[in-house]
Amino acid sequence: MRKDPFKPAARVAGQRQDVWSIVNEAALASPVQPITNLGQGFFGYNPPEFVLDAAREALGKVECNQYSPTKGRPRLKKAIANAYSPHFNRMINPDTEVTITTGANEGMLSAFMGFLEAGDEVIVFEPFFDQYISNIEMPGGKVVYVPMTPPKNGATQTTSAGEWFVDMEVLEDKITDKTRMIVLNSPHNPVGKVFSKEELQAIGGLCVKHNIIILSDEVYDRLYYVPFTRIATLSPEIAALTLTVGSAGKNFYATGWRVGYLIGPEHLIKYVSAAHTRICYSSVSPLQEATAVAFERADEEGFWDDSKKEMKGKMERFNEVWDELGLPYSIPQGGYFVLVNLAKVKLPADYPFPDHVANRPRDFKLSWFCIMELGVAAIPPTEFFTDANAHIVEDWLRFAVCKEDKILESAKERLRGLRKYIK
Amino acid sequence: MRKDPFKPAARVAGQRQDVWSIVNEAALASPVQPITNLGQGFFGYNPPEFVLDAAREALGKVECNQYSPTKGRPRLKKAIANAYSPHFNRMINPDTEVTITTGANEGMLSAFMGFLEAGDEVIVFEPFFDQYISNIEMPGGKVVYVPMTPPKNGATQTTSAGEWFVDMEVLEDKITDKTRMIVLNSPHNPVGKVFSKEELQAIGGLCVKHNIIILSDEVYDRLYYVPFTRIATLSPEIAALTLTVGSAGKNFYATGWRVGYLIGPEHLIKYVSAAHTRICYSSVSPLQEATAVAFERADEEGFWDDSKKEMKGKMERFNEVWDELGLPYSIPQGGYFVLVNLAKVKLPADYPFPDHVANRPRDFKLSWFCIMELGVAAIPPTEFFTDANAHIVEDWLRFAVCKEDKILESAKERLRGLRKYIK
Repeated sequence: MRKDPFKPAARVAGQRQDVWSIVNEAALASPVQPITNLGQGFFGYNPPEFVLDAAREALGKVECNQYSPTKGRPRLKKAIANAYSPHFNRMINPDTEVTITTGANEGMLSAFMGFLEAGDEVIVFEPFFDQYISNIEMPGGKVVYVPMTPPKNGATQTTSAGEWFVDMEVLEDKITDKTRMIVLNSPHNPVGKVFSKEELQAIGGLCVKHNIIILSDEVYDRLYYVPFTRIATLSPEIAALTLTVGSAGKNFYATGWRVGYLIGPEHLIKYVSAAHTRICYSSVSPLQEATAVAFERADEEGFWDDSKKEMKGKMERFNEVWDELGLPYSIPQGGYFVLVNLAKVKLPADYPFPDHVANRPRDFKLSWFCIMELGVAAIPPTEFFTDANAHIVEDWLRFAVCKEDKILESAKERLRGLRKYIK
Repeated sequence: MRKDPFKPAARVAGQRQDVWSIVNEAALASPVQPITNLGQGFFGYNPPEFVLDAAREALGKVECNQYSPTKGRPRLKKAIANAYSPHFNRMINPDTEVTITTGANEGMLSAFMGFLEAGDEVIVFEPFFDQYISNIEMPGGKVVYVPMTPPKNGATQTTSAGEWFVDMEVLEDKITDKTRMIVLNSPHNPVGKVFSKEELQAIGGLCVKHNIIILSDEVYDRLYYVPFTRIATLSPEIAALTLTVGSAGKNFYATGWRVGYLIGPEHLIKYVSAAHTRICYSSVSPLQEATAVAFERADEEGFWDDSKKEMKGKMERFNEVWDELGLPYSIPQGGYFVLVNLAKVKLPADYPFPDHVANRPRDFKLSWFCIMELGVAAIPPTEFFTDANAHIVEDWLRFAVCKEDKILESAKERLRGLRKYIK
């Protein structure tokens, strides 16, 4: 008889408290209510009406409420192939080169499950989206970290997110015989960097040289404010190794819809599909159908241009407060996150931080302080680093601007309260 | 440099063609069109209007289109706790004893991921729902099979699905020091058996004796035609070991919604949640909200009673054709599948079965023949057995009756064409 029937598997045991629950707990405990929440990257507004209408219509159709094919609804795969073929400079085959997943997250897990054996190594840049790590470790993969470093003068002046830097020699040094995959993210969360064509060519060249599968997380692919290059377009050799990840939730302001997709060559996509089938069987039918309509009509609705223009406007208007305060930030090249350097903010020496915040890096204290004293929530980015490299971003906070304008204005007004702590 | 960059992981490689794609392929190739499809267990009709209305309304709310908490929307957890507390004879805590998953399938995977280490054994009865196997093997678990045997006279006369039998001595013999979990399914797919209180007490007693976690798949829990017992209600000791799995898709005719849930003690539920967070992050928000309303209003709408009565009526009317033909079947005690014994149907000796059907057991040939000659699709149940035990059901086919009445009548009319092959 087992002595420990309730002992969890190692993969889910003993995690420290995650950043989201620390921030949410602080938000609930703050004396300033309601909190102005620029923490998690969900939208503060609805998907466009033409997309919501499509979802409502889908709910009336029997076949849209029942199981979809495991690889996704044919209409959605076709709409995605049509929408992306011009961006990939080739005709994407909807039947063999697109697969639908339960959000980009489960899509990436499916890719790792499709290719990783125990002990295989996966290169991940720091900072990283936290789910990558458990998704790589679940099939037994080992994460190998390569740090991105902020601009040297990032603590004293506002710089471009493009100046965050990956040292290609460090990257190549980390490649071993066990390196199976590399995870890219452009536009990058939380840095806001859009990797340049030259950087992607260097990375892609290394992957071709060493036969490494590229998992390119491009969920912010419609929100770029400088030229955006997709690594899959750089050469046929790179394309043969590349899985591109997309997200209807990020594209259409619906992070709760859980419709993601991967695009790539058949020899990669078919095993992503096979893994997805075993993980979720199939993905949510009525919202797949609505997403198909969304992709079909986005151009004629002028949605992509509006979406990008709107988000860029939010970013610029919000960042005015940092210019006012003289706090340097990293101007995003894409996405909806901005990293702000708060080295100049002096926290009161005797401030009563709870233990689980006090024993984390300075950015956790900055986050807690902003929530409690100003009523503004932001995310401490050391959560997206390993402990060894956390010091790189311990003075920064991540703010999400995908919120209503009145929320952004409220945040700015509240953040002006930082002035008295800036020395 | 790796020589085999496109080699898939063993967990997704080299699977033989699954039953669903064989049946779908045959359905497309049949000369009889359209096919009357009683194969896969999706509903041939829509969720009730009050549930669809709730989904449409949810789509208008910003927070219902964005990420839900990873453990599920509080309103849905509360609605489920309220709906199930009377069935569990105790107050279920919505915050700690309920977690929402992306369908029951990903819910069961989350349970396996939460508790299995490599080499741990999980007992599964044959026949089994095919996804169990890959879901157990993904975290490194080993499936240990215990066969259910049909009634001795099941080939010659119509019997009750309740007569399908699990030998408790065989079951106990299969328990080892490595046995970590057991999967139950009641009402059972494909058998239609509702496990009796006595059977569940015997199984539960063994699990308490050996400290085995019980994963009780009760997705057909509202469709029972004899008294239905939930194993979690039999004793506090059994309850402490039991995770009960439910499905909004099965309950509310929406298999494409991907909203599942697990109910159990906090010491089990918290690790299911932890695994789910790493697999899917969170589940589909607007349909969680609609499911909350569905549970809140089902009683006052008289939905549960109507639903059961309607399905039982479909089952009885459909099975008239077997009585007419003199083909014995297993009268379901629950769910919407019926197993029919076609031993008396003599397939033409020279019938041109394709190779991938010819080399499978006789039920695959029966299925292919019915699709091609009669235009009726059903599922060969040997797919739900290991090769060693497949012979047990090689004369049976599984028909799903969760279809519109006119489809069932069409199926009956077409199935009368079997008469000339019955010897």
